[in-house]
This record gives sequence, C-alpha cells and structure tokens, in this order.
Amino acid sequence: MAEIVSEKVAIIGSGVIGQYWAMIFASGGYHVSLYDIDQSQVSRSLTAVKERLERYEQQGCLRGQTSAAEQVVLISGHTNLTECLKDAIYVQECVPEVAELKTKVFEQMDEMLSDSIVAASSSSCLGPSMFAGGMKNRDRVVVAHPVNPPYFIPLVEIVPGPWTAPDVIQKTQSIMRKVGQSPVTLKSEVPGFALNRIQYSIINECWNMFKEGILSAEDIDVVMRDGLGPRYAFIGPLETMHLNADGIVDYCKRYADGAYKVGQTLTIPPVQYDVPTA
Amino acid sequence: MAEIVSEKVAIIGSGVIGQYWAMIFASGGYHVSLYDIDQSQVSRSLTAVKERLERYEQQGCLRGQTSAAEQVVLISGHTNLTECLKDAIYVQECVPEVAELKTKVFEQMDEMLSDSIVAASSSSCLGPSMFAGGMKNRDRVVVAHPVNPPYFIPLVEIVPGPWTAPDVIQKTQSIMRKVGQSPVTLKSEVPGFALNRIQYSIINECWNMFKEGILSAEDIDVVMRDGLGPRYAFIGPLETMHLNADGIVDYCKRYADGAYKVGQTLTIPPVQYDVPTA
Repeated sequence: MAEIVSEKVAIIGSGVIGQYWAMIFASGGYHVSLYDIDQSQVSRSLTAVKERLERYEQQGCLRGQTSAAEQVVLISGHTNLTECLKDAIYVQECVPEVAELKTKVFEQMDEMLSDSIVAASSSSCLGPSMFAGGMKNRDRVVVAHPVNPPYFIPLVEIVPGPWTAPDVIQKTQSIMRKVGQSPVTLKSEVPGFALNRIQYSIINECWNMFKEGILSAEDIDVVMRDGLGPRYAFIGPLETMHLNADGIVDYCKRYADGAYKVGQTLTIPPVQYDVPTA
Repeated sequence: MAEIVSEKVAIIGSGVIGQYWAMIFASGGYHVSLYDIDQSQVSRSLTAVKERLERYEQQGCLRGQTSAAEQVVLISGHTNLTECLKDAIYVQECVPEVAELKTKVFEQMDEMLSDSIVAASSSSCLGPSMFAGGMKNRDRVVVAHPVNPPYFIPLVEIVPGPWTAPDVIQKTQSIMRKVGQSPVTLKSEVPGFALNRIQYSIINECWNMFKEGILSAEDIDVVMRDGLGPRYAFIGPLETMHLNADGIVDYCKRYADGAYKVGQTLTIPPVQYDVPTA
C-alpha cells in the first residue's frame, strides 16, 4: 500500500465534477471532505463515488497505488461548511458556472480561509475577479479548471486573478502534479482561458466549412478524429511544427508563407453558432 | 492467408510518402509498381520498404492480413513510366510539392491514362487545377492527400478539380476504404483543404497566445496534448459539442453566447509566423 498523505482537501459542490475531484484527490492519498447543502445530495454523491471507484477497479482504470476500498474510506460527506473546511490545505469549488452563486460561496468561505490555504474554483470561463474580488482573502483564490471527464483528461488550467498570491499558484501546481493531473499556468485571466480559445478557433472554422458546404459534418469530424487528433493526443501544435520540419525555424521558413495565404481565407472570428434545426 | 487482390496500383515518386503508399496498398493485397527516375533511388526505396515492413511485423504494427514477406513480393520498382502505369487501375503521384513539377509529371502521364483509371496526387496544398488543367484526361485527376505518417494516420482528403469525373471520386473513396484509410471528400478546391484550415486556425491562436505571453510554449502544447487531444483522437469537434450537452441544439443554446464573446477576442487570421530566433 502506498503512503497515505495525511493532508486534507475540501470539495465544495458534490455534482459530477465534484465527485471526480474527490476521486482524483483520494487516488493521491488525500483525505477528502465533500460538501453539499443537502444531506440527501451528499449521500447520493458518496454512493456514486463508491460505485464508480469499484467499477473502475474492476475495469482496470482505477488511479493511484491503493485499492478502491482504501480510497473510498478517505472520502467523507458534509453539509456543514465550517466542518468541511477545518484543517483543509486546499479547497476545490465545483458549484454551477453562475457568477452570483460562486460569489456567494466564496464570500461564505472567506472568514474560514487560513493564510496558507488554496481556494481554487473549477470555473471554465469565470476568472477569479468575476467572483472573488470583494473577498478579504482574495489573494488565496485561483481558478483550477479541469476538463471533462477530469479522471481521464489530466489537463488543469491554473488562472490567477490580479491579486492571487504567488504561493497559491505554486501550491496548486504542486498538488495537481502530486495527484497526477497536468497543470498549465496562465499569466492572467483571458476570455476562454487557453483551452476554449483553441477549441473555439477550431469550432469557428469547422462550423464555417459546414455552412459553406465544403464537406459534411461527419467528414469534418473525421478530419480531426482520423487526421489531426491522433497526433494531438501525443504532441501539441508547436511541437508538431517542430517535428514536421528540421525544427520550428525551418518549419517557419518552409511553410509560413503558405500558411499566411491560407490564413487570409480562414473564417474571421467570431462565429455566432446558429442553432441547427435538423 | 488473405485473398490477394489482383489489381495493380502505380506510385509515382519513391520518397518517404511514396514508400508509405506502397506499403499501404500492398497491405491491402494490391500489386504495387513504384516509379522513380533513377534506378539507384528505386533500389534504395525498395530496400527501405522491405526493412520497414519487416520491422513493423516484429513490432506488431504491420497492417493487413498477410505477412511482411508476402507484402514485399507485391511491390516492384520501375524507372520506365509506361511500364509502371501499364494496366494500373489507380495512380498515386508523390513528387515534391512544386506546381511545375507536378504539372510535368501529369503531362507525361496524360497519354497513358485509361478511361477508367484514377490519377491521384498526394498534394497537400495544390488543388488539381494548379497542375492538371491542361491535360486531355484531367477528368481522371483528383487529389488524395495523406497525413504524415500515412501508415499510422488514416485520414485522406479527397479534393476534386472543377472537371473531375464523379466516378473518379467514388473509386478513390472505395480504394481508400479497401486499404484501411479513412477518406473525406471536399466539394471543391479550397485553400489548405480541410485539415490545414483547421490546423492553421489552431496554430494562429497558439502562436498569438505565446506572443502575448499568456502561457509558455510548453504549456500551450500541454493544453492540446493533455486536454483537447485525447478527446479528438476519438471524437471530432462537432460530435464533442453534441456530447458536451443534451445534443448540439442544446449545446448552441447553452454555449453559443459565451463562445461568441470569447470569439470576439480571438486572433483574427492570418498570423504571419515570425521565425523564432531562440
């Protein structure tokens, strides 16, 4: 059995993302306190987590060095916020993506935050300044955005607010690496963070090619799934450029002019997606 | 041993892409005639093909239902274009991406093309009208663009010229599926075809994020490799939208406004890549 990390992590919000975070932290040996406002919701979530961990163990995709049973006992449920946060070194908030709701939750937590804690939000589009600006302890707040499903997709986008303390960023990077996630760190809040800036660039062009009738929706998906996707599961866009020539300098010399010409014909963002009717 | 397809395919140009095409067609049981202008180049290519097939067999990644030795004997080398094309049902041209060179090769082949043949180019950016417009048999010409390395990346972009015969497109789709490639069909020649339109959209935004200092080059690659990439190796961008909500209509209702706001801040193509100096 692997060494059990004795530290405690608090998860605020026990929906699917909160459940996955609980499983990820338990796989790293952390004690996990899972909070929700309603006891029946907490109970349902704990049951779902237990069932999923046991199923993943059977299917051979359980994370961590301990058994499902050992991980299950690390996770406890709470409806008392003070009790949930007590002695926690790290908080991961997972409430719905509504600025008013996140603001309320972080204000409730404000007085309970220690000087050394990290209070991270799972927000996918709201930066810290959109919900934590009024807090006394706003320097402890950061975004740690997971990608669905976080148990299988390791990326976490760390996005600081203007006043986030440097040690908060470093501690978030460190704990993410400890539990096997793959953190990247943005300099500041930018719309869409990095992942959705890339994803929306892709969708813009795909949406436009479909509308222009250049190829079918099925074929557009095949271009990614059987073309670019198998590369990107192993190497990123910049490393691909580097490997597609004798290094990235040579790539630019060979392809920049051609790419520029194609670039002049690309869809100019933004695209307002029409709701498809068929 | 699987049934040997008795039909013959001709490969024009025996560089790396030509070699991969030869291996792919041989894995499907086709007789393959591999042409180059110089006998020593042909011999080197045949040796490279044989060694690679044997290595892939040892490594367990040989394609097809037959052994490496059985596939090797299907591939012959030629320096006589007439002899290489004789009785071929399909030609795959793989010369360097230079319009004048492709024009010359297709003009040389023009008189040798039967009424039922497909003459496909591996071109990644030149559409048929850029090298085949002056041919008597231009209706038999199409682009069948592979993705490097084609032995492991199944996508093939089929791009017709304005005068490509419908049966040429259908035959190309059919033969690609027979040898295990994954064809998509564009309506017409568009700059960058589909793959590079998507790839350049990605690079534009990544390049800009690096220049703006939003995140490091390493982290940009991690966003794709550990975030979007593992999805795109299995499901395309449109199917991802569909699965990220209760169907694509619901996705648009929930996320189109947010995506539009982010879209307004995306890099407006084109980006002229600066050659990096460090």
